Amino acid sequence: MEPKSVALFGISRYPREGGFNILQHLLNYGYEGRIYPVHPEADEILGVKAYHRVADVPEDVDLAVINLPRSLVPGIARDCVEKGISAIIIATQGFADANDVKGEQLQKEIDEIISGKARVLGPNTFGTANAFINFSSSFAELKMKRMPVGLICQTGVLYVGSPDLSLLGKGIDLGNGCDLDFANALEYFEHDDDVRVIALHTEGMRDAGSFLSVAKRVAHKKPMVVLKTGRSGLAAQAAQSHTGSLVGKDEVWEAALKQCGAIRVSDIDELGDTVRILSALPLMKGRRIGVLTYTGGFAVASIDASQRFGLEIAELSPGTLEQLNAISPPWFTVANPVDIWPATILSRRPMLKVFRQALEILFSDLAVDAVLCICGIWEDAVCNKFCQYTERLAQSYPHKPLVWYIYGPLANEAKSALEETGKTGVFSSPDRAIGALAHLADYSQFLGEFQAPEGV
Amino acid sequence: MEPKSVALFGISRYPREGGFNILQHLLNYGYEGRIYPVHPEADEILGVKAYHRVADVPEDVDLAVINLPRSLVPGIARDCVEKGISAIIIATQGFADANDVKGEQLQKEIDEIISGKARVLGPNTFGTANAFINFSSSFAELKMKRMPVGLICQTGVLYVGSPDLSLLGKGIDLGNGCDLDFANALEYFEHDDDVRVIALHTEGMRDAGSFLSVAKRVAHKKPMVVLKTGRSGLAAQAAQSHTGSLVGKDEVWEAALKQCGAIRVSDIDELGDTVRILSALPLMKGRRIGVLTYTGGFAVASIDASQRFGLEIAELSPGTLEQLNAISPPWFTVANPVDIWPATILSRRPMLKVFRQALEILFSDLAVDAVLCICGIWEDAVCNKFCQYTERLAQSYPHKPLVWYIYGPLANEAKSALEETGKTGVFSSPDRAIGALAHLADYSQFLGEFQAPEGV
Repeated sequence: MEPKSVALFGISRYPREGGFNILQHLLNYGYEGRIYPVHPEADEILGVKAYHRVADVPEDVDLAVINLPRSLVPGIARDCVEKGISAIIIATQGFADANDVKGEQLQKEIDEIISGKARVLGPNTFGTANAFINFSSSFAELKMKRMPVGLICQTGVLYVGSPDLSLLGKGIDLGNGCDLDFANALEYFEHDDDVRVIALHTEGMRDAGSFLSVAKRVAHKKPMVVLKTGRSGLAAQAAQSHTGSLVGKDEVWEAALKQCGAIRVSDIDELGDTVRILSALPLMKGRRIGVLTYTGGFAVASIDASQRFGLEIAELSPGTLEQLNAISPPWFTVANPVDIWPATILSRRPMLKVFRQALEILFSDLAVDAVLCICGIWEDAVCNKFCQYTERLAQSYPHKPLVWYIYGPLANEAKSALEETGKTGVFSSPDRAIGALAHLADYSQFLGEFQAPEGV
Repeated sequence: MEPKSVALFGISRYPREGGFNILQHLLNYGYEGRIYPVHPEADEILGVKAYHRVADVPEDVDLAVINLPRSLVPGIARDCVEKGISAIIIATQGFADANDVKGEQLQKEIDEIISGKARVLGPNTFGTANAFINFSSSFAELKMKRMPVGLICQTGVLYVGSPDLSLLGKGIDLGNGCDLDFANALEYFEHDDDVRVIALHTEGMRDAGSFLSVAKRVAHKKPMVVLKTGRSGLAAQAAQSHTGSLVGKDEVWEAALKQCGAIRVSDIDELGDTVRILSALPLMKGRRIGVLTYTGGFAVASIDASQRFGLEIAELSPGTLEQLNAISPPWFTVANPVDIWPATILSRRPMLKVFRQALEILFSDLAVDAVLCICGIWEDAVCNKFCQYTERLAQSYPHKPLVWYIYGPLANEAKSALEETGKTGVFSSPDRAIGALAHLADYSQFLGEFQAPEGV
């Protein structure tokens, strides 16, 4: 994960733009370690000195990354072991994931070569990524960000990410997992101080028992968000064919994950949402949320969503209601969700001032465990103000999460700016915001963070 | 909906940037009708001649938009009726949506004034929007697009849209619905040739019976996507307070909507997805989908999603499998979802050529009713090619929908470009793509489009 030097096998001598060239990517990322391309015929690739054999490299090497046709892999693995390289990433496909005897044989050969001398990640893997040292062994160019998130997966595509899934602080793609497996990866992140949230994608495991026993321990230290695919029989079969792993019954997984305190999600949207909220926000003290909105329509939708995801719409304390009624027109009765439309535009009062007031009032209510703001944004200035409020509230109420659903023409810009503060999460609908908060509440409860309500 | 001239009440004499000024917006949109600001003291606003009273306007007026404090509304409504204006939008809040007797009284006054002489939209409404004539009566500046989508809602916020919900071709916000209601709006879009898909948001209706009888008829002509919020008791109460409408039991709604052939969705993300797929794509002939992917991980996820949403992973015909196996390495067995990774990078063959081949093979299979492509995009050139393939396939297979899940650094750009072709939909996850396809399949089945499989 933290290689100071890396040997690359299978780099084209004539790399072109967009040519999936690891060396090119490492130079682009600004990887600061030493790079040794190994190529039987080249003396130099992209300005970097190349070696014909790894044995020719004059210094010690931490990591080897192999991207060669499968029949060449065992030989190269042997060279690496002889050179004293103790960590090998085999990106090549066609081993346990293949349908033929040759794949199995080659896999066995590799197992024998490395046994006790080196650890192998893969085959059939993107390898590792580490934004903190600008390193990735993937042939696909990655967008990495120094997020406190460690991703463990079985399929590199999660590395690549959809626009909403830019969460790659560190990543381990296990691929076939011939040697290093889920339990190893999880233990690694358990002790990695850069990682505060662990995201995990699995289709099934050979040794689910040892994974679960590690998971049980880790869940008490760091939240683990798990996307377990391969629910159905057909899906299980497909999983088998592409990584050669065994999948268990879905109900068994459901129960086991729940028991060890992992947070199970059902798709990548939910994975992204959940990881974002857990990495940016404090734990909740209960399930009661306050909602601030400019539109009664989303107030109703928020109530629906709270029911759907198992949160409660907080019953505001009398003092809070009094203060909110004081800024609303007399014909309007305030309740949670708090519709501040009547208090602003309709009363011809300055929008931002009222918004800030209402937000402070909601935060100060002890009956509110988290706040969801639903707002449209039309002006950059408003967006900047929202960022300021977010930072100030995070300081004043360090144990009360604030999340947003932003609509309107500047919604995307506002999302980036607000999340850049590192103090909040912005979601694509009130439903997704509340779904994410529900996971945060579940994990908070698991850790015993829930408080008895006042007076109980 | 198609006003050639509009009188505006309640425009500030001193409009400022971001000041929620309808006149300013209409000028920005490029509305081509005549605009008559009415203001007791101003002779001109933003360079447009203003009138002290509506009676002073020298020409006929199609529509009045009233944005004044509630106590002034009945008087102005009377002026409008006397001027012969037959359509009035009352944006003002505080009538049936208020908690006081005054609100009720004012509402009653308005009812009497307009009775038989004019139709009223609102109160408490954004009014109407029509991208085809660059018109909107909303004080919030809207992004409109000439999409074949008519939106009927009870809360203007759906107009404003999240980034994912840019679907406003035409819109009707009913607000309190004191006069014009859901049935009227639905009938309007039934006969509007610009509108091919109807999106509808409701929290409840006073006259659900007449709505449902119209809906039953309309569903056979145009798909209706319905977001019904206010599921729980608390949500129903909130809905009552902000638009003064009654909500019925959720199970009753569920059954009634299903019976009349409406497509019910559960949140705004799903509303946007469903409207986009219905407006861009042909109906399906069955539930069997083909999936093309570069990653086994999403193959597994797609199978899970198909099960979850009630679609089938197509069993490919022998000829198709033969062709696909011919382009894959010998150790790999092709199945649906079709993982073309081994056939491309791994076999060192040109990625785009293989992709196009595989796509054509999948489309030509009679056992496949729709295709989902799961792809990463790193290069603009690839994105352009994908657009070309999309257009060509839509031409060759006009009855087989193609949808995408795109990841990677250029995902957002690719989404825009692909959807710009008007021939496909791009979704934020395989799950959402398959969920949208399932709605398309349901509607196709409702219309009797499903074909008996070959040989049955």
